[in-house]
Amino acid sequence: MEELSLRTSSRQEMVDITGLVQEAIRKNGWGSGAVLVYCPHTTGAVTINEGADPDVARDIAVNLAKIVPAHGDYRHAEGNSDAHIKASLVGPDQLAPVEDGRLRLGTWQRVFFCEFDGPRTRKIWVNWLPGK
Amino acid sequence: MEELSLRTSSRQEMVDITGLVQEAIRKNGWGSGAVLVYCPHTTGAVTINEGADPDVARDIAVNLAKIVPAHGDYRHAEGNSDAHIKASLVGPDQLAPVEDGRLRLGTWQRVFFCEFDGPRTRKIWVNWLPGK
Amino acid sequence: MEELSLRTSSRQEMVDITGLVQEAIRKNGWGSGAVLVYCPHTTGAVTINEGADPDVARDIAVNLAKIVPAHGDYRHAEGNSDAHIKASLVGPDQLAPVEDGRLRLGTWQRVFFCEFDGPRTRKIWVNWLPGK
Repeated sequence: MEELSLRTSSRQEMVDITGLVQEAIRKNGWGSGAVLVYCPHTTGAVTINEGADPDVARDIAVNLAKIVPAHGDYRHAEGNSDAHIKASLVGPDQLAPVEDGRLRLGTWQRVFFCEFDGPRTRKIWVNWLPGK
Repeated sequence: MEELSLRTSSRQEMVDITGLVQEAIRKNGWGSGAVLVYCPHTTGAVTINEGADPDVARDIAVNLAKIVPAHGDYRHAEGNSDAHIKASLVGPDQLAPVEDGRLRLGTWQRVFFCEFDGPRTRKIWVNWLPGK
Repeated sequence: MEELSLRTSSRQEMVDITGLVQEAIRKNGWGSGAVLVYCPHTTGAVTINEGADPDVARDIAVNLAKIVPAHGDYRHAEGNSDAHIKASLVGPDQLAPVEDGRLRLGTWQRVFFCEFDGPRTRKIWVNWLPGK
């Protein structure tokens, strides 16, 4: 298991962590299988989506906030229930295929950490699941 | 594979199954890798979120019902289309890292079965994916 | 890794790919573990839900379009931001248990490719994660 560390800069934000995940694979000498990219926080998530046009990540972040409004019928006293709900909708776990030591994503795909209650310092765990 | 059994008590409910999953790991002597916690039902799901304050699970359940209303443009005759939609949004599969025979979750994380069409008796399958 | 190919016929559509996934397992002689059914596209996803009544898949597709409207506060110039958002909500990765060379799904479950920006020709990758 490899632990990544990152700092987010706003309340809701999509951070491209593809390079960090690839570096974890290289550093550990992992071959072919899959990586479980796992968010141990309950107000963040991990997803894979388009990274070529930054407007895609912006549109995802902005519109998730419309689907799950910041204020509503929430009882959790910390005032971040929307972030918890988004975390379960997007999900804390993301699997990505790895082939011969390289992330094997689609042409336009990148791995993103989704910050829903930042800015914060966050950890991401990268776990290896061998293919054979 | 280990099959867990549980009984839910209302239509929509989040049930903390962390202890049951941990017990399945212990009983089978699984070491380091990940467990696939899998819901074989189509109106339930598995997620990981905060378990310290029960209001978080309550807020998730109540607000998923606002995002996916119980009544709408639904044709499925069983009257539980909302539950099917929530099942695909949250997802039937949840991976959790395991280290030396222990679930390795974040500080506040717990594993939840999400009941979307209860009360029912439910099965959850726990599958082992070794890390090496 | 096995690559599946399919052609979708409308903008949003749920395509049952259970048979294709099972055939990939058989062809490769995979035994017990899990398959990672992975969508390398950023405007599609993979999910598991009910396949007995086709109205369930129809209700999911139609109502996801209500949750994430086709037009909104979107900047991505390709006009398919809704498809990208749905892709991250449903998720590009789906794990399914496999036992003795057979997909082990719940009674009513089928594996679906979710097309959110079709019609297109799509690839789906099936990766093997052995159980032991």
